[in-house]
Amino acid sequence: MPSLSEIVTACDQVTNRSSIQDFPGANNGLQIENNGEVTKIGAAVDAGIVPFEKAIEAGVDFLIVHHGLFWNTPERYTDVLYRKLKLAMDHNLAVYSSHLPLDAHQEIGNNRLLAKAIGLEPEDWFLPFEGTPIALLAKAPESRDVLKTRLQEEFKDGMTALEFGSQSPKRVAILTGSGRSALSCLRENDTDTLITGELRQEHFNLAQEERFNLYLCGHYATERYGVTALAGQMASKFQIPSHFIQTSCPL
Amino acid sequence: MPSLSEIVTACDQVTNRSSIQDFPGANNGLQIENNGEVTKIGAAVDAGIVPFEKAIEAGVDFLIVHHGLFWNTPERYTDVLYRKLKLAMDHNLAVYSSHLPLDAHQEIGNNRLLAKAIGLEPEDWFLPFEGTPIALLAKAPESRDVLKTRLQEEFKDGMTALEFGSQSPKRVAILTGSGRSALSCLRENDTDTLITGELRQEHFNLAQEERFNLYLCGHYATERYGVTALAGQMASKFQIPSHFIQTSCPL
Amino acid sequence: MPSLSEIVTACDQVTNRSSIQDFPGANNGLQIENNGEVTKIGAAVDAGIVPFEKAIEAGVDFLIVHHGLFWNTPERYTDVLYRKLKLAMDHNLAVYSSHLPLDAHQEIGNNRLLAKAIGLEPEDWFLPFEGTPIALLAKAPESRDVLKTRLQEEFKDGMTALEFGSQSPKRVAILTGSGRSALSCLRENDTDTLITGELRQEHFNLAQEERFNLYLCGHYATERYGVTALAGQMASKFQIPSHFIQTSCPL
Amino acid sequence: MPSLSEIVTACDQVTNRSSIQDFPGANNGLQIENNGEVTKIGAAVDAGIVPFEKAIEAGVDFLIVHHGLFWNTPERYTDVLYRKLKLAMDHNLAVYSSHLPLDAHQEIGNNRLLAKAIGLEPEDWFLPFEGTPIALLAKAPESRDVLKTRLQEEFKDGMTALEFGSQSPKRVAILTGSGRSALSCLRENDTDTLITGELRQEHFNLAQEERFNLYLCGHYATERYGVTALAGQMASKFQIPSHFIQTSCPL
Amino acid sequence: MPSLSEIVTACDQVTNRSSIQDFPGANNGLQIENNGEVTKIGAAVDAGIVPFEKAIEAGVDFLIVHHGLFWNTPERYTDVLYRKLKLAMDHNLAVYSSHLPLDAHQEIGNNRLLAKAIGLEPEDWFLPFEGTPIALLAKAPESRDVLKTRLQEEFKDGMTALEFGSQSPKRVAILTGSGRSALSCLRENDTDTLITGELRQEHFNLAQEERFNLYLCGHYATERYGVTALAGQMASKFQIPSHFIQTSCPL
Amino acid sequence: MPSLSEIVTACDQVTNRSSIQDFPGANNGLQIENNGEVTKIGAAVDAGIVPFEKAIEAGVDFLIVHHGLFWNTPERYTDVLYRKLKLAMDHNLAVYSSHLPLDAHQEIGNNRLLAKAIGLEPEDWFLPFEGTPIALLAKAPESRDVLKTRLQEEFKDGMTALEFGSQSPKRVAILTGSGRSALSCLRENDTDTLITGELRQEHFNLAQEERFNLYLCGHYATERYGVTALAGQMASKFQIPSHFIQTSCPL
Repeated sequence: MPSLSEIVTACDQVTNRSSIQDFPGANNGLQIENNGEVTKIGAAVDAGIVPFEKAIEAGVDFLIVHHGLFWNTPERYTDVLYRKLKLAMDHNLAVYSSHLPLDAHQEIGNNRLLAKAIGLEPEDWFLPFEGTPIALLAKAPESRDVLKTRLQEEFKDGMTALEFGSQSPKRVAILTGSGRSALSCLRENDTDTLITGELRQEHFNLAQEERFNLYLCGHYATERYGVTALAGQMASKFQIPSHFIQTSCPL
Repeated sequence: MPSLSEIVTACDQVTNRSSIQDFPGANNGLQIENNGEVTKIGAAVDAGIVPFEKAIEAGVDFLIVHHGLFWNTPERYTDVLYRKLKLAMDHNLAVYSSHLPLDAHQEIGNNRLLAKAIGLEPEDWFLPFEGTPIALLAKAPESRDVLKTRLQEEFKDGMTALEFGSQSPKRVAILTGSGRSALSCLRENDTDTLITGELRQEHFNLAQEERFNLYLCGHYATERYGVTALAGQMASKFQIPSHFIQTSCPL
Repeated sequence: MPSLSEIVTACDQVTNRSSIQDFPGANNGLQIENNGEVTKIGAAVDAGIVPFEKAIEAGVDFLIVHHGLFWNTPERYTDVLYRKLKLAMDHNLAVYSSHLPLDAHQEIGNNRLLAKAIGLEPEDWFLPFEGTPIALLAKAPESRDVLKTRLQEEFKDGMTALEFGSQSPKRVAILTGSGRSALSCLRENDTDTLITGELRQEHFNLAQEERFNLYLCGHYATERYGVTALAGQMASKFQIPSHFIQTSCPL
Repeated sequence: MPSLSEIVTACDQVTNRSSIQDFPGANNGLQIENNGEVTKIGAAVDAGIVPFEKAIEAGVDFLIVHHGLFWNTPERYTDVLYRKLKLAMDHNLAVYSSHLPLDAHQEIGNNRLLAKAIGLEPEDWFLPFEGTPIALLAKAPESRDVLKTRLQEEFKDGMTALEFGSQSPKRVAILTGSGRSALSCLRENDTDTLITGELRQEHFNLAQEERFNLYLCGHYATERYGVTALAGQMASKFQIPSHFIQTSCPL
Repeated sequence: MPSLSEIVTACDQVTNRSSIQDFPGANNGLQIENNGEVTKIGAAVDAGIVPFEKAIEAGVDFLIVHHGLFWNTPERYTDVLYRKLKLAMDHNLAVYSSHLPLDAHQEIGNNRLLAKAIGLEPEDWFLPFEGTPIALLAKAPESRDVLKTRLQEEFKDGMTALEFGSQSPKRVAILTGSGRSALSCLRENDTDTLITGELRQEHFNLAQEERFNLYLCGHYATERYGVTALAGQMASKFQIPSHFIQTSCPL
Repeated sequence: MPSLSEIVTACDQVTNRSSIQDFPGANNGLQIENNGEVTKIGAAVDAGIVPFEKAIEAGVDFLIVHHGLFWNTPERYTDVLYRKLKLAMDHNLAVYSSHLPLDAHQEIGNNRLLAKAIGLEPEDWFLPFEGTPIALLAKAPESRDVLKTRLQEEFKDGMTALEFGSQSPKRVAILTGSGRSALSCLRENDTDTLITGELRQEHFNLAQEERFNLYLCGHYATERYGVTALAGQMASKFQIPSHFIQTSCPL
């Protein structure tokens, strides 16, 4: 049975935590301690109170999340935050967060695993954030139609296609979660086609004007890969069970 | 046949342009001049090149839009912007933009007309932006289920319901377009239920934790009302035809 | 036995919490919830782990502090912060913080009570912070020597006198805690004499150049009054015991 | 007959556009497109409506300017800006702007050509802006009087001499346009003498106190060199005519 | 013979110093003390070392200036600043600075006295800086030509006329010193004609595009009026001589 | 007898002035000129009017200080600043300031000399400010008690010990003056023990929570070493006398 510090160290190493700079508020790494022992690993996209409840119900005491607890500065330990922290502390639930390190990871990152799920070969990475490229470029399938079909199969709960670009792009860009930051870099990376999680209404007009193909597959849906893979790796390394905490998020 | 300056003055007055402060970049009012004469009015949500083309095809020479041309600072008159401006200038298309004035308007604003479309009575306004409240509070129908049904009828192209709040809210908040800014003000306005256009993935977790009912009806879909109504009013006042420029925007 | 919300409401009202703006990070009001019941009130200057331990030992479940938990933004619930929050939550300790409201209060504020302790009559208030004057002006005793003697009696653990001003000032300024912000406002308030908690080395030279009398009585020592008085008032109002949590802070 | 893109590429290369950082708002490079063909090149200091009119009258369809269109963010396409853009678009006038690249250029830059015009040999460059030195140091003639005489001959429309420095400086600094930024760097470059375009009234006192020789030859007058030379080079390379658009600017 | 504090108080009152906010760095009021006695008053535009020398030579011990000593933060008392301060202190020269108060003054301000000098009647004030209008509107003479002739007579050392506006403006704006801030407010004040001290090269193009008449009469030349008038008033009030310190500033 | 410029150059070299970046306002180097000759060197911690008077009384004409004249921007040469500058200028007193260069110096810096005074051997430096480490790490004596005794002997006017760390630390950190910036770097430098000049009240709680040993020996008292040593070195190099200007500063 691993200690908390062993598993945290292993997660830090696998994700290269110390060498990847993230947005302010990401605070990658251990975000809530526990009593020092870990028996079961969970994976969730969000560090919300419902995922905490489900994790505890499932016997998890080390929860890996993609979106941690500090995007908004805590101002009081009352109401939801009081209940959330007390819940975790009362049930010995440690929480570990890994954001960009699990987008950018070349083996177990969200972009890489999404590419794999739809059968695309990685060609290159782009869109460096403070030195770490966080978006993937993959060889396109024979046509836009084939690509769309594969995405519809992978994302059965819904996918929105804005198809104003070429019918047979050579390469496809992939940026899970919010795709906003990739848009202005598509052309300079020789592509007009992006698979992403979510965009805003203003990008429909942009797609029309700039002649892009944009596939919106859900922020939540495109970011389940990384945490699941990291939890699985840890489970196997330390010989303990792991478990994905599903929520019904349609966004 | 009205002159451009007559119709601009009339639009400014009806929308109270000069007394409503908007976000930097909104630049409400006339955004592209023409030769000074107006024969047909168009209405569109976005000032994009496709709406411009459709407007010109329809013979429009005065186009009212909700999202104007200056959200991003122009840096060069080349590529899309060159073609867009040349298109307008070559075809004598004037463009008039009205953003918050057409959200906040108590008769022809987006919020008010959405409420009307689903049969809700306005009770109050909230969420002041630099002094102008931009969101509506309406008396709720008998239950959340009734509300949802009406929304599904009005927004046939798709509506997402995140229902974690009360089953019979007393009041309903309405903020068309992006609903983000309203979320932290719901409780202090005695409601847990918001009808809006779009939100981000992080708000799913918020809805779960704060126990909100959130209805996402599309940013584009919820903002067609105001420009259409203003164009209609102007058409009737100046005895010229008007026309809504539809696009296929699903966001 | 009062409920947590009753006692929080009472504290808010007595201290005029909602109408007094404080420094970012002060977050006056309830900072940690408990199970909703209060049986014993504590008062401490700092929301530190040692005061928490002493409060719990003394059976306190509602601790009033002057310096709360949010001056530095929490970034992780690990190490000291984990232990501190878990300690409070495990022992049902609620924490209520009141900073400027307990400096500026005209009856139970630190400045007013310090003046009382050394027998000075208030004349006026000055140094408005966002509208609330936070420093006191009092009628001076017959001479600087008398003042010094009284301070030595009140602050037995040590007081530093920098006496470069007049021997018989007419008025004395009082600003408990850090006196820095009052220095540039002394002359315009017709005084050259300040009683405060702590200053920095650079203010010795300032005192020599500007010919001030500065009495440094300890930041901690000058700020015990307000929390003690508020705790006492609450204890008496709700008929439960109260207790001052002492630390050995010499600064 | 060159295409627009050929001539733009040639201008970019000759001026090293991509490797020279300029002030925000300079936006060096193509600023207004045309139909893609170029038959005659113009050169002007300012991208004003009068230079546009004169260029069109002269048959120019590719105008090189030193001060482009984006120093102030456009907020509406109305009034002067509407007329200016429509004028250019209706008459197929492309506009290309080159600011610091045409000050700093070691062969066809303003500083270098001014030095040449008055018979001075370059010695060195100084005053780096984001890595590119933008001011020239030249060997001085035998005396200040000789220098002044040569400047009076070159700048017949008027030159202002503020002579409080040495009578026989060894080196002369040259910074065309506004000389303000060079003033604090003269001494460390072993000179007290600056030839520039314009300065402000406060610099008269500075010249007296710091004992400088300052020669103000006109912002406009000192910046005609670069655009003329670039236009000439392009004309000769692509075998089409070129033309300098003169205005009566006395500043 | 007045004391320094009497004359400073009188200057403060006449110029309404305490109620007029100025740019950071103006520091209106007494800027260098002396031994407390004043026997002769001087007036100069700039607080430079040459005006100081001339003032001392003339026996002045109270020098009124328009541009004081603090526009640039002093960083060391060495070189020019050492010599300048030592000069003033060794010769008992007090320095009093008054900037916007002497532009905006309705009787002895620069704008008002310039208007008087060319025979124009004030109609209104505009261009408020933090509440104080600093530019004048006057009734125009019969034509632009008459105006120009009068300016040429008043400013014999040179005046630059940029005449692109109407030939017979109804009103004339006056802003001594730098006229930049007035340009965008001319039209809304029903004028296209400005008399000022200095502008920058970019304003030539602006004048052409916006069809303005701009008369540049010299920053120094247009700001001699106010200090001279204040010195004269003080001289007469306190029965001591006064003296204007001329420099050869052509800007 | 050295010239002013010789001794300034020597001080600059010994302290590596040009290569050490300091806080804005430090302005290391010559801060007040004199007539160019130096006969006696003084050393003081603060550039105050009392140290100036004492220096002049002692015949000093070159005063080395640690805290110079520019921490607060001068706004007028009146009152204290007038008297201070006039005093220096009238008595030919030059002032030279050296702040971080005299903290960080590996031979005559405050940290190094304090370590020497209590018999500690330097091991390393830490806490880089813009590239220059400004705090020292030394080998600890056998126990915390021995360290405390030595400090009590060296700082006879008073020392405050906050002892919540280990009883036998291996290394001791030293940062003279204000120790605030060193606190968050102690653990990563393998120590829990800091000798410094002054801290604030909030650091008492920090010491308790983080389990530090903090020894507060006085900001003034810990920063007398460097100026004294530099003055001594200069005196011996140029064969003129030197003198330490003592004040009674207890902070």
